[in-house]
Amino acid sequence: MAYEPRHMKWWGWGYEDAEFRASRHPGFWPFAKSVLDIENDDFPRREWSLHSVALPEARVDEPFLTRLRACLAPGQVTNEAKERVIHSYGKGFRDLFRLRHGIATGAPDLIVYPESERDVCLTLRAAVERDIVLIPFGGGSNIAGCLERMDPGRMCVSLDMRRMRRVLAVDRRSFTAQIEAGVFGPDLEQQLSAHGMTLGHFPDSFLHSTLGGWLATRSAGMQSDKYGKIEDMVIAVRMVTPEGVLETRVVPKASNGIDVNHLCVGSEGMLGVITEATMRVHAFPESRQVRGYLFPEFEGGMEAIYECANQECMPAMVRLNDPDKTALSLAFRPLPSGFTKIASSLFKTYLRVKGFAQPRACLMLIAFEGNERGVSRRLQQAETIYRKRGAVGLGASAGKSFEATKYDFPHIRDFLLDRNVTTDVSETATVWGNIATLYHDTISVLREEISKSGVRPWAGCHVSHTYPCGASLYFTFGFRQRPGHELEQYLQVKRAVQQSFIDHGATLSHHHAVGTEHLPWLAADISPIGVQAISAIKQRLDPVNIMNPGRLLPSSTPFEDWLALGSPLRRTEKSAQH
Amino acid sequence: MAYEPRHMKWWGWGYEDAEFRASRHPGFWPFAKSVLDIENDDFPRREWSLHSVALPEARVDEPFLTRLRACLAPGQVTNEAKERVIHSYGKGFRDLFRLRHGIATGAPDLIVYPESERDVCLTLRAAVERDIVLIPFGGGSNIAGCLERMDPGRMCVSLDMRRMRRVLAVDRRSFTAQIEAGVFGPDLEQQLSAHGMTLGHFPDSFLHSTLGGWLATRSAGMQSDKYGKIEDMVIAVRMVTPEGVLETRVVPKASNGIDVNHLCVGSEGMLGVITEATMRVHAFPESRQVRGYLFPEFEGGMEAIYECANQECMPAMVRLNDPDKTALSLAFRPLPSGFTKIASSLFKTYLRVKGFAQPRACLMLIAFEGNERGVSRRLQQAETIYRKRGAVGLGASAGKSFEATKYDFPHIRDFLLDRNVTTDVSETATVWGNIATLYHDTISVLREEISKSGVRPWAGCHVSHTYPCGASLYFTFGFRQRPGHELEQYLQVKRAVQQSFIDHGATLSHHHAVGTEHLPWLAADISPIGVQAISAIKQRLDPVNIMNPGRLLPSSTPFEDWLALGSPLRRTEKSAQH
Repeated sequence: MAYEPRHMKWWGWGYEDAEFRASRHPGFWPFAKSVLDIENDDFPRREWSLHSVALPEARVDEPFLTRLRACLAPGQVTNEAKERVIHSYGKGFRDLFRLRHGIATGAPDLIVYPESERDVCLTLRAAVERDIVLIPFGGGSNIAGCLERMDPGRMCVSLDMRRMRRVLAVDRRSFTAQIEAGVFGPDLEQQLSAHGMTLGHFPDSFLHSTLGGWLATRSAGMQSDKYGKIEDMVIAVRMVTPEGVLETRVVPKASNGIDVNHLCVGSEGMLGVITEATMRVHAFPESRQVRGYLFPEFEGGMEAIYECANQECMPAMVRLNDPDKTALSLAFRPLPSGFTKIASSLFKTYLRVKGFAQPRACLMLIAFEGNERGVSRRLQQAETIYRKRGAVGLGASAGKSFEATKYDFPHIRDFLLDRNVTTDVSETATVWGNIATLYHDTISVLREEISKSGVRPWAGCHVSHTYPCGASLYFTFGFRQRPGHELEQYLQVKRAVQQSFIDHGATLSHHHAVGTEHLPWLAADISPIGVQAISAIKQRLDPVNIMNPGRLLPSSTPFEDWLALGSPLRRTEKSAQH
Repeated sequence: MAYEPRHMKWWGWGYEDAEFRASRHPGFWPFAKSVLDIENDDFPRREWSLHSVALPEARVDEPFLTRLRACLAPGQVTNEAKERVIHSYGKGFRDLFRLRHGIATGAPDLIVYPESERDVCLTLRAAVERDIVLIPFGGGSNIAGCLERMDPGRMCVSLDMRRMRRVLAVDRRSFTAQIEAGVFGPDLEQQLSAHGMTLGHFPDSFLHSTLGGWLATRSAGMQSDKYGKIEDMVIAVRMVTPEGVLETRVVPKASNGIDVNHLCVGSEGMLGVITEATMRVHAFPESRQVRGYLFPEFEGGMEAIYECANQECMPAMVRLNDPDKTALSLAFRPLPSGFTKIASSLFKTYLRVKGFAQPRACLMLIAFEGNERGVSRRLQQAETIYRKRGAVGLGASAGKSFEATKYDFPHIRDFLLDRNVTTDVSETATVWGNIATLYHDTISVLREEISKSGVRPWAGCHVSHTYPCGASLYFTFGFRQRPGHELEQYLQVKRAVQQSFIDHGATLSHHHAVGTEHLPWLAADISPIGVQAISAIKQRLDPVNIMNPGRLLPSSTPFEDWLALGSPLRRTEKSAQH
């Protein structure tokens, strides 16, 4: 029997039985109310029922279904209502907002669970013949709109890859592992750990995302500073396209023309289905040290990261929060025990004495991994640099607390959505020489743009991934919704922040993919000729355009199309208004 | 006045005034004679005259020429005989053999020296209009046939990029440099050193190759173990294609769909002309230590490299020679001074006492770079590992001697060609788990295949670039020519060694590109669908097929076409025979 990780709840992040519990984080809601200027406290608990979702009638292509049924087991093909709703969208703001308002126009007509590459090939072949759209689906955690169905005129199948979850082979001598693409993070790490290995890829979505999804979106894990982004870990891939299987060799590096591995990575399902990959893996590190520090200000923290990058003591993970994100992180802390409370209040006094101004203090979390000696040497070196910048160590306990809750953060959004607050994130990357300007200008843009809708803005940022040449800046923002104008309000802010990235020479995303949310800026980022090249590959490998149509190819009116997404709802908004 | 590095001699490697002088390497010719079974010592010194080259009449498209002359300076356009011969080919065995036999069918009809991206654009535009072939030319050092003219039916222009040689900007804070593509290695390093920076890219061809060439062929420098291959150093590129300029942003990493930087890198001139790139650069290392060691056998040496890779003490450079390549290296040593002679003979005695069997001993050269402390720590760690494998240190003097002669090796080939000996190289990469088998089998294949032509085989190998997952194996081979059958003999051997790579799951090349020499194996390496994808990009960005036609797209009869290259000469061979 195939292992089946549970689906996430359709109305939010995480499993149905997991959610943000305000009682465990007593500081959070008061914090949110204060920074977002919320007076009301009376939000009824919503019970989510599938009956509230208007599921469009499923298109059925009988010859297609007959062919699938002839070669797949009954449990591999379904059009159950709940499955259709779950596979409607990813987990972006627009996705959740629509489902929570009963809109599931993105629902696929059928869900297929392949259990082998053969199943994938058969499905593709039948789909080509019957002109049926296929959208590869991993964990469904994407927040950029990569799973958005763009072609309502054709039958659409969600190809849920989760049953292709085996680690097929581990070459312990070469530190490579051949892995099926549908495996989820925890399952993969468990299988690799049986060989003493780890992939070292821990994105925030780790619990709910798959290898194939990471590859298709050029994901980055928390420890990318040491292990690289997912594209740096790929040794070889297999991708089933409508024209045949693209496959590459298990070699560390090559000079064999244009590197076609890089045509698969980042292809967002528009060329084919990544069925497996051979990845670089690592011996389980002997030592792992996670630490927290408080810097007197953001600039000094960035300077410290920069120095570490240049002095051969870059941690495996660095997360430096700006003052607002620091305040959010502190407010998010779980209920402290009696002793921790006292210790924490003593610490506050200590910080006051040291001259730390709370509104400017910045929390940094780092992790070092490797052999004992190397870790302790680099940690020491880094701490010397941090201290020079006035940092105060919060010790290993801050690290432990981070480790314990590191995957919980996305739950906050559901909690806030229940309270009519919109939150979202936009992240980018730039070189060190540009980072301070990009940071300050984008925070300003965010605040201004949110303010325009007449509500109090909240915007924070953290440095999330660092490189010798630069770093990723990860912005988080939130604001009270203007009832009846929620999507408009969101789009206005999202557009402003993305435009700020592009205007400042940064990229549209460092690790969240293009999807629908960032598509209008693609040509600005990679140049129109870059888009032309992608379009050419698409036409050749998928001439009938069945693979996740609409990805990576902006229309001639990208912003109009972008604004129109979720338009049924926006019509509702308007009618509510008049 | 534009700086103009000199061209290499048309009949061999290096400048006209540089060559291998047997008198300075007294051990070499006796060694070669012995291993190659050469009795004759009477090879007349050849004087190379352009008059011996049958240069085909230059095709002239008057409207094209008129347009070029209207917008370029007179010194930027030439069809002088010597320039045409120099730009005929790269420096592969077939290239040199043909020119030395008076065949220059590959000669371009015109050479254009652009001095700006504007010049490149103008030339491309005119070429598109007049259906004229353009072959981007850097230093002309390529040995895989990347510069081979494949379309004799159309006028052909060699686009020599050497005047676009400026470092346009160095961002010292971000460790990036924006560089024009035509700059040669030494010139680039000199310009960067004014900013205290280095690119860290030192291929064997360093003196005679350009940034654009490195990018177009996915080159690897000697110190790739630390700095990466050229594709790992690219931050952004500008490539002029017939359809417009492909340009990417100066960001350390991104998730903006398919990474179009990787469409330019490795494109071998078939999509457009790389005019500039923003590269990651490094502060000039505080310390550089180069050392030599002698290992009792090859396997132990490989094991030591492997252990270093896994214990965080991988050198910036490792070159481990197998026994045959070691013997060659030792024979290649320059004339020793009196003192060195005595020291060296003492050392030989020492090695005998230590039980080193000369025929199995293996020379390894390594370099560590970085800050003083880090270098000395890693060097110490590495030496512990080496000693465990029985290695004997040859000290810094072996390192110095390597440094002094590291770019001289290619001169040997000319010396041997003058003596009717064919030598060539084939290199590949594979994972650690496969490396021993690949090595032993390929050496056997080489020896067998050479023997088939009735001459004594010589084949050696060195590990040239290492990675956590595997390494590159670099084979060198040589044999006496069968008069009148030189190309046949070469092709038979070359074919066997490349086939061995592919049969063993390795790649067609680690850093020499596809060109014509490796083209028949491209579909086996990257799969037919991979080739299809490249073909699609080609058709879109270069719809009239003017950019270096024939690259990266194997014909339907790849081996026939491959064998036919240089066919005029082979007809001569045959007529000589009958």
